[in-house]
Amino acid sequence: MNYRLTISYDGTRYHGWESKKEVDTIEGKLEAVFARMTEQDVKIHGAGRTDAGVHAMGMVANGFLDTMLTPEEIKAYANHYLPDDICVMDVSEATERFHARLNAKGKVYQYTCYIGDEKPVFDRMYTWVLPEWVTNGTPDRMPDIEAMQKAAGYLIGTHDFKSFCGNNKMKKSTVRTIYDITIAEERGYLRMTFHGNGFLQNMVRILTGTLLEVGYGRMHAEDMETVLASRDRQKAGPTAPPHGLTLLEVEYGV
Amino acid sequence: MNYRLTISYDGTRYHGWESKKEVDTIEGKLEAVFARMTEQDVKIHGAGRTDAGVHAMGMVANGFLDTMLTPEEIKAYANHYLPDDICVMDVSEATERFHARLNAKGKVYQYTCYIGDEKPVFDRMYTWVLPEWVTNGTPDRMPDIEAMQKAAGYLIGTHDFKSFCGNNKMKKSTVRTIYDITIAEERGYLRMTFHGNGFLQNMVRILTGTLLEVGYGRMHAEDMETVLASRDRQKAGPTAPPHGLTLLEVEYGV
Repeated sequence: MNYRLTISYDGTRYHGWESKKEVDTIEGKLEAVFARMTEQDVKIHGAGRTDAGVHAMGMVANGFLDTMLTPEEIKAYANHYLPDDICVMDVSEATERFHARLNAKGKVYQYTCYIGDEKPVFDRMYTWVLPEWVTNGTPDRMPDIEAMQKAAGYLIGTHDFKSFCGNNKMKKSTVRTIYDITIAEERGYLRMTFHGNGFLQNMVRILTGTLLEVGYGRMHAEDMETVLASRDRQKAGPTAPPHGLTLLEVEYGV
Repeated sequence: MNYRLTISYDGTRYHGWESKKEVDTIEGKLEAVFARMTEQDVKIHGAGRTDAGVHAMGMVANGFLDTMLTPEEIKAYANHYLPDDICVMDVSEATERFHARLNAKGKVYQYTCYIGDEKPVFDRMYTWVLPEWVTNGTPDRMPDIEAMQKAAGYLIGTHDFKSFCGNNKMKKSTVRTIYDITIAEERGYLRMTFHGNGFLQNMVRILTGTLLEVGYGRMHAEDMETVLASRDRQKAGPTAPPHGLTLLEVEYGV
């Protein structure tokens, strides 16, 4: 039976999603727990591969599990044996053809920054405190959010995002569609939400770094057109660090 | 000049508030940073001594600092040199007689539990996931909050709280006044807030453990009277672990 899993995790301690020998990964922890449960090798397919240090509130994965347990019992078993920083939120039976990555229609990521003269003590693992090289030396200076929103307008739509791809050996298509980017500030927390049909390696982190360049006046909103057209990673902004990024949701068709 | 400091910290990595040789404490970190700033030994007085692992959003402390810096500059200096899990939220000039502990009129603590078949991945350092020995073997069973509120009613007021004191060699008065206890549940999170004129060692954690005994039917609300009257630590419930506890606020007279 093929099962669909919804998973949340704090990525701080992990070398990313994808199974790797000798290091801890989210997929590796899940595969180990389900192998223990079924006494068989298990392959889990995630909707995407989050980078080392990136978090998820609603990652979706699937895997074939040979078990008599109900979905609720599978969830209870997994949460009992998984570490405290990985939680299976939901288990449901899926059709044999369901594949978490191939069937994904959209993803929503959120990037959280903090700007101010205090420190987000309790959110510090999930928030990028903007350093002085970003804020032009003024720790509590807010970026120009209107300019960032204008820049985001150029990025929304179907484009070749090669300039925003962290893998410079990428051979497959770098065309993606961004449906929406929202940017909101509240009490020093700047949250950027990216909704698209898929994202290239490091793409959300490079989009974040580039929008902040615009917000602090080192790039102009209109520059987004030339950055996209250049297909040159060097033309975009820096890659924001992983710990501010959380995968909120993966969408599937009906 | 005597300064009043408001401090937030994640207590996870620390051996409590109070300065100790050879181990990291919050007070020790603050004293080291202010000694660096003033090039003098500095003694910081906290409103109370939080246990190892306990957090604070609004600890208040005071200290005499021989410096030409403004309060804003002191705050910026401290936050620059303090680790990521300690933040000075506010610095203000105080009268020479202000003493954070001796002048404190009240304190508000919050204890957070989680009950459910999921896990609070992102709040796990600040939340006690109730184990089966508390929930009578049913991980998602909510306690009887009405019974807990009734028990809390017996605890509110001025009482000898010796039964709720973790220090059995306590020689000073164990009489304290609790002004209010609120208990609220939201999406699996059970939050108990304790407002009093002061709390004995481990007192909030023992109150929490005892209220949960009532919530899960192992004690009755009415038992609080005999527990208080006994002045015997053995009669109260177990001590809840430190990581669910946060000092929210310290109050001072006008």
